[in-house]
Amino acid sequence: MRPTFTRSYTERAGKFSNPAARQLLEVMARKQSNLCISVDVTLKGEFLEVVDAVGPYTCLIKTHIDIIEDFDQDLITQLKNLSSKHDFLIFEDRKFADIGNTVVLQYSKGVHKIASWSDITNAHAIPGPSIITGLASVGVPLGRGLLLLAEMSSKGSLASGSYTEGAVRMARDHRDFVIGFIAQNRMEGIGSRGFEAEVDEDFLIITPGVGLDQSGDSMGQQYRTPFQVVAEGGSDVIIVGRGIYGGGVDIPTIQTRAERYRAEGWKAYEARLK
Amino acid sequence: MRPTFTRSYTERAGKFSNPAARQLLEVMARKQSNLCISVDVTLKGEFLEVVDAVGPYTCLIKTHIDIIEDFDQDLITQLKNLSSKHDFLIFEDRKFADIGNTVVLQYSKGVHKIASWSDITNAHAIPGPSIITGLASVGVPLGRGLLLLAEMSSKGSLASGSYTEGAVRMARDHRDFVIGFIAQNRMEGIGSRGFEAEVDEDFLIITPGVGLDQSGDSMGQQYRTPFQVVAEGGSDVIIVGRGIYGGGVDIPTIQTRAERYRAEGWKAYEARLK
Repeated sequence: MRPTFTRSYTERAGKFSNPAARQLLEVMARKQSNLCISVDVTLKGEFLEVVDAVGPYTCLIKTHIDIIEDFDQDLITQLKNLSSKHDFLIFEDRKFADIGNTVVLQYSKGVHKIASWSDITNAHAIPGPSIITGLASVGVPLGRGLLLLAEMSSKGSLASGSYTEGAVRMARDHRDFVIGFIAQNRMEGIGSRGFEAEVDEDFLIITPGVGLDQSGDSMGQQYRTPFQVVAEGGSDVIIVGRGIYGGGVDIPTIQTRAERYRAEGWKAYEARLK
Repeated sequence: MRPTFTRSYTERAGKFSNPAARQLLEVMARKQSNLCISVDVTLKGEFLEVVDAVGPYTCLIKTHIDIIEDFDQDLITQLKNLSSKHDFLIFEDRKFADIGNTVVLQYSKGVHKIASWSDITNAHAIPGPSIITGLASVGVPLGRGLLLLAEMSSKGSLASGSYTEGAVRMARDHRDFVIGFIAQNRMEGIGSRGFEAEVDEDFLIITPGVGLDQSGDSMGQQYRTPFQVVAEGGSDVIIVGRGIYGGGVDIPTIQTRAERYRAEGWKAYEARLK
């Protein structure tokens, strides 16, 4: 039997019960894009400008909503309008990392009300299963999806070995809500206890630390190319941030870069289907 | 030589170079309180009311600022006024968990601007050392202190064994900023490579999951008593939340409960000095 990740995004979409996972795979196939763009700017005007510029090239806009200085509810309204206009999903990269009772409040309440607008969010597995059940109590009724952090691309990360195995086991126990991982590698079968039928297991793998022109930054981030990540590593979605909008460039340049990453990511996906 | 944690808070205060750690230990001695109160309510008015009520009994107010629905800058102004009025420090329990470049923005920017008002914050060690150097680049110039998550009190936590050792090693490499741990046990000597002189090592241990009247909640949180945590476990500060303000009780009841935890925590500290 061929591993799940060598099948097409369209074929895999039909097998996910989680609506956010299904929608994401369908958008990817429709737009021929496995490119997630991380928009890490701190002002609302610039944020919306970049999202509108890169919208046509991306399947998923990744946000850090808590770094935006002049955040307001209108930003969310406009972001959702852009999501409809350009056909992409929204992923708040919150990296929840607290116990169940706290993440329930952090996900649903506060100024940002993440659950009300973010199709997908993510969490660290470190607190144990209560973080998933807590987030699921908010997210499942809204049709949201969760990614777990199973590995990290930064130097000296402690997310490896038995930690990664523990994270995958937690995901396997909550397949209605956990749709995949932020990771560098495929996770099917990792940490399997043998009696679990993981042969047809399919987790989405979303991979940060992707760059075409650099190998790292001054703060410990390390980069790999779309081909290494998608064709060789089997990842489903590449995350690119500063490589697209960084350096204070104009909108046409940002769009040219976004299209370059989209095309490279898609080429790598097609190579792995063969 | 006696382990550092069997010395008085006053004696230990003099040995910390980090100003937030020193101030915290001095407040603890001055108020005879090793009680940190976690105020997890979602409305500004109630938040400030609880903080004003429990202020006299606490050395440290722990916040989840991102769950407050009607957060505004005036809340911060009033919180800082209460901190002066009642002589306590502020600890935003943010559990940062991203790479260096991102946490710099999350700590200093956005709506909440945590670094501008929170004396102490915390972070997971999972991304590797870049999370500390990133946060330190913002916090050290402001005299802030950082606690690392070395263990968690929730069921099935992945923060144990080699993970805990890795976290302690990261802390040891950044003693100017990392003042201690959110943990259940002492961390001196953990993960030591032998050539490090940890005999006089002193980390503050701040411990959640403390309760006098219950043993757990429905979302995987587990509780121990102040005596178990401080006298037997060697922790320096106990964190109590719902045990004090939970159940919709009135202000006098909240104050009675806060004083009870303060007295129990202090008695446990005195027992361990003997």
